[in-house]
Amino acid sequence: MVGILGGGQLARMLAEAATPLGVHVRVLAAPGDEGAREVVPDTVVGDPLDPDDVARFEAGVDVLTIDHENVDHETLASLEAAGSAVRPGVGTLRFSDKAHQRRAFASGGIPVPEFVVVDPVASVPGAQEVAVAFASGSGPEVVAKASRGGYDGRAVWMLGADQVGPFVAAYEGSPLVFEPKLDLRCELAVLVARNPSGEVRTWPVLETVQVDGMCDEVVFPAPVEDHVAQRAREIASDVAELTGAVGVLAVELFVLGDDEVLVNEIAPRVHNSGHLTIEGSSTSQFEQHLRAILDWPLGPTGMSSPAVAMSNVVGSGEIDPRTRQALALAGVPEAHVHLYGKAPRDRRKVGHVTVLGDERGSTRQRAAMAAELLSGDRVR
Amino acid sequence: MVGILGGGQLARMLAEAATPLGVHVRVLAAPGDEGAREVVPDTVVGDPLDPDDVARFEAGVDVLTIDHENVDHETLASLEAAGSAVRPGVGTLRFSDKAHQRRAFASGGIPVPEFVVVDPVASVPGAQEVAVAFASGSGPEVVAKASRGGYDGRAVWMLGADQVGPFVAAYEGSPLVFEPKLDLRCELAVLVARNPSGEVRTWPVLETVQVDGMCDEVVFPAPVEDHVAQRAREIASDVAELTGAVGVLAVELFVLGDDEVLVNEIAPRVHNSGHLTIEGSSTSQFEQHLRAILDWPLGPTGMSSPAVAMSNVVGSGEIDPRTRQALALAGVPEAHVHLYGKAPRDRRKVGHVTVLGDERGSTRQRAAMAAELLSGDRVR
Repeated sequence: MVGILGGGQLARMLAEAATPLGVHVRVLAAPGDEGAREVVPDTVVGDPLDPDDVARFEAGVDVLTIDHENVDHETLASLEAAGSAVRPGVGTLRFSDKAHQRRAFASGGIPVPEFVVVDPVASVPGAQEVAVAFASGSGPEVVAKASRGGYDGRAVWMLGADQVGPFVAAYEGSPLVFEPKLDLRCELAVLVARNPSGEVRTWPVLETVQVDGMCDEVVFPAPVEDHVAQRAREIASDVAELTGAVGVLAVELFVLGDDEVLVNEIAPRVHNSGHLTIEGSSTSQFEQHLRAILDWPLGPTGMSSPAVAMSNVVGSGEIDPRTRQALALAGVPEAHVHLYGKAPRDRRKVGHVTVLGDERGSTRQRAAMAAELLSGDRVR
Repeated sequence: MVGILGGGQLARMLAEAATPLGVHVRVLAAPGDEGAREVVPDTVVGDPLDPDDVARFEAGVDVLTIDHENVDHETLASLEAAGSAVRPGVGTLRFSDKAHQRRAFASGGIPVPEFVVVDPVASVPGAQEVAVAFASGSGPEVVAKASRGGYDGRAVWMLGADQVGPFVAAYEGSPLVFEPKLDLRCELAVLVARNPSGEVRTWPVLETVQVDGMCDEVVFPAPVEDHVAQRAREIASDVAELTGAVGVLAVELFVLGDDEVLVNEIAPRVHNSGHLTIEGSSTSQFEQHLRAILDWPLGPTGMSSPAVAMSNVVGSGEIDPRTRQALALAGVPEAHVHLYGKAPRDRRKVGHVTVLGDERGSTRQRAAMAAELLSGDRVR
């Protein structure tokens, strides 16, 4: 039995992949989690951040995995030390801290942007000076990212050089990672899976299109040359090895104008950028994650169509996509609709659409059109 | 909300298709049904043959559909008369009676084998004489099928001409359909979907391979010429219209040596022969059934690979396929494994495997090998 900490859409889609495989899934869902509970009979309500809830939940399952990395790492560390199968392991989960990630990648030979980490809250003097010095050497604007707690563009700030000093002085959160605002040719994602036996598989390189820092579209093939794609996949394999990943891990990459490929950040789990593998690849990221954490042989990762595109369905507050499937399918009959059982408030991701086609541009347009018909909102 | 009468593997796979679409499913499962209950939180235990259970269940759902046709037709007829959405409707469900089916098809212009219906139990004299006369005119062997209650090769008998008289004299079941034992080139299946708006879609023609009267393998492409395939699809569309089908309907066909195509029998629902559409077609039979009964636009039915093969996993009693996925995936990493949550007793179908490939023969072998690794049993 596989236990999943957290009951959002990633747990839901893991459960969707587990059912055909004959793998029983139990979910520890927070009271507000809507995604998984609707479709997983064996759901326990509790707090993935509460040590007692997590320990009690773990005792009933064979392998423990996660819906999101906002879980109690210390409890997982003691479970792991006691011999439990925590996959990904705590060593991998710690890479969700962006400061740790950048430092470990830089010292491990993984290419990353220039960066500096400062901790405005710690009583080490000089945080402000270090940040200002970095900014003055890195062009007119820099990017500041909180090392913990950010997602979907939250806790990321663009700052002019003159804003950096006051920002650091006023900031009270987790340590900050500063990096230059880079001139990006495009952004890529590579999903990679690794099992405890050491088998590693990457999927083909995907383009990710961000809107306001949130992944909005994912497109295959990515608009890069073969050598760039090859380089990106090699980096992703290196990341899987360096982090000791077990399961699926998403590597988000920057491509610069001169074909340089740098790791932006990683997520130590299945990821929005990989949703199109459900229909678009021989093995979906969700099935592969289950195969990896169960130490089963990994599946082939070839794409099943010349072009594949995914577009997120973002809640617009008033229109419920769960009433608009017929409309979307009238416009785009070939759309693969995925709704997550979540109320469409707060500009949350409440679903996604994948379209398979013969050509990148039109396939992307079809996916975007279906997502727009579902959400009733033109976000792109 | 869609309500499903019966909680076997067809309900389970309908629920798997409903989840991504954001369609809530409720199941009325018999106490012994294992397939759906494991994965459908909203399962009610009751008897799909009990009028009160069915009426109470129907009151809570928007559209009522079936896992199997062994349901209380009279109750459904009164619900339908009162305006409920029963899909397929009772008029279509009645075609699961093989005597009714043959007579209606013959008079409606659907090509069927020569046949005669006799009712040994009714107090109409002459049943034995009619059957014996048919057998003496139809070659050395005839096939007798009970009009109701048969599946997976049950309630079908091969009889020599001299056995027919004693068989009819001793028989005590539902009326019998007699037909000649035909010289088959191959057997085909065509899945067809129809929605209340009248949209009709057929999938490409599939070959079905039977072992002991039970579907064992399904293979695409079928080994027939284009004009035979085209004829089979036309017949399936005609059957959907004649039966007034709403939802998916499976048409099983005989191909004779001279390219004649005859309807063997139909199932007014999703069907074993269509399981390979889950990965092998743009739209699976399960999603299409939901789209049809909800009167949504139907999806495209093209195949996603040059060759697709499905092989059933049949319980062998001692080995549980739910412990053998890693073995099967080591042998056939590209296999799409589907297990139904059923104990592997009584030579029941407890799962299936689908493989996509480039060439018919090798793809079929790979699927059969994966199924054999799961079941631990060489059935072919």
